[in-house]
Amino acid sequence: MGKFIIIGERIHCISPVIKEAMEKRDPAPILKRADEQLKAGATYLDLNIGPAEKGGEELMQWGVKLLQENFDNVPIALDTANQKAIEAGIKVYNRSKGKPIVNSADDGDRKSYIDLAAANDAIVIALCSKAGVPSDNEERQTYCLEMLEHGVGLGMESEDLWFDPLFLVIKGMQEKQKETLEFISWLSEQGFNSTGGLSNVSNMMPKHIRPIMDSTMVAISIAHGLTSAIVNPCDQRLMEAVKSADIIMNQTLFADSYLEL
Amino acid sequence: MGKFIIIGERIHCISPVIKEAMEKRDPAPILKRADEQLKAGATYLDLNIGPAEKGGEELMQWGVKLLQENFDNVPIALDTANQKAIEAGIKVYNRSKGKPIVNSADDGDRKSYIDLAAANDAIVIALCSKAGVPSDNEERQTYCLEMLEHGVGLGMESEDLWFDPLFLVIKGMQEKQKETLEFISWLSEQGFNSTGGLSNVSNMMPKHIRPIMDSTMVAISIAHGLTSAIVNPCDQRLMEAVKSADIIMNQTLFADSYLEL
Repeated sequence: MGKFIIIGERIHCISPVIKEAMEKRDPAPILKRADEQLKAGATYLDLNIGPAEKGGEELMQWGVKLLQENFDNVPIALDTANQKAIEAGIKVYNRSKGKPIVNSADDGDRKSYIDLAAANDAIVIALCSKAGVPSDNEERQTYCLEMLEHGVGLGMESEDLWFDPLFLVIKGMQEKQKETLEFISWLSEQGFNSTGGLSNVSNMMPKHIRPIMDSTMVAISIAHGLTSAIVNPCDQRLMEAVKSADIIMNQTLFADSYLEL
Repeated sequence: MGKFIIIGERIHCISPVIKEAMEKRDPAPILKRADEQLKAGATYLDLNIGPAEKGGEELMQWGVKLLQENFDNVPIALDTANQKAIEAGIKVYNRSKGKPIVNSADDGDRKSYIDLAAANDAIVIALCSKAGVPSDNEERQTYCLEMLEHGVGLGMESEDLWFDPLFLVIKGMQEKQKETLEFISWLSEQGFNSTGGLSNVSNMMPKHIRPIMDSTMVAISIAHGLTSAIVNPCDQRLMEAVKSADIIMNQTLFADSYLEL
């Protein structure tokens, strides 16, 4: 098992600063967040341009080039509801540091994102759901295996499907958390890669609690075999938990300086 | 599953302050540490008087009475290499808040601590080792089941044997950590109670790292089914991880104020 992989989530048009920067094609705020996330330990940067119905193709190309030209061809997760924008982004994407990630498919309306990844030799994040929250792990497994079959049928390597167990919010779905962890164990036993929006678990909690809950959840998830997450790498406590869990699970070698690495 | 149980480790004669207080029968330093640990969330207090070859019986009785009289009959783990001192302590022990814990037996030279617990209707911490570090989990299981058989043969309830998986130091035994976790899972699958000196994992690490590593390890261990640990409850980060893991594992109900409870 390799080190846990961080996909930095902070270049997201839901942030007013980033939204404005994207609209005005202003590099500075985007480069600043990219730099902070990479210094904090992100491997991939998620580039979320939102629905981007108009001008999405040109915006995604601008964003991909901006990030890769300034950060040594950093690998990127291309994140939008506009599939043409993802395809456009991949056209200008430099693969020297890793394949692009298509974010994201599911086993329902967004199954075609797997086709998109297959046609472009990309990794795809595949959410194990169809319409809404899966009622149990049997359902999650069905969606997972259907998506796997679909991707492999299109010529993909199974390792290029990163399955998302669908992290659920504790406030309201506390009794569902163990199920998510059991599903992560199952994915790990199959040898599948996995990822997900982990900080969803602490959604709606008081602000000071979120890093505490997220860091606890990420440690437990890594120990269950999660291989990656889409998170905020600038959350220091979370990153300390990631690095410590990597040590405990023997995925990276201990050194007294491991928190600085 | 109930909430994770904390046995506070800070009343230990290895501390010069506590050693002196025990020698002089000076209540203040001991009561101070007891108070701090109980306020921080300890359920049991460990009372470690060391080898206590001379005067151990009287010292243990003094300590047990001191703690129970001042803290509403707080339950105590009686911890010493002097078995007679443990027996003496139990004689004056008030059970209204829980049975005493005998700390600790193993499957070798200290197997007689199980007899002591059985004869006194006490809980016993049973270290799954015989002489030195068990070479693998098959060995741990053998010791565990031998001790269980021995205790049950003496009339104990299986729930009164709290099995210690033997936490190993990461510096030097990093590749053994997953094995410890797998053994905790096994104990949990059998329905056994468990505990242990968890902070041993971060032994010899730089001081600022220890709470980070311990809090990560405790979260992962709770998710594997550990039911208790002998730790420092005044380590705030560790306690935050314990409380968060209890929420994730649905062992206690979430409230926005859960960290203060």
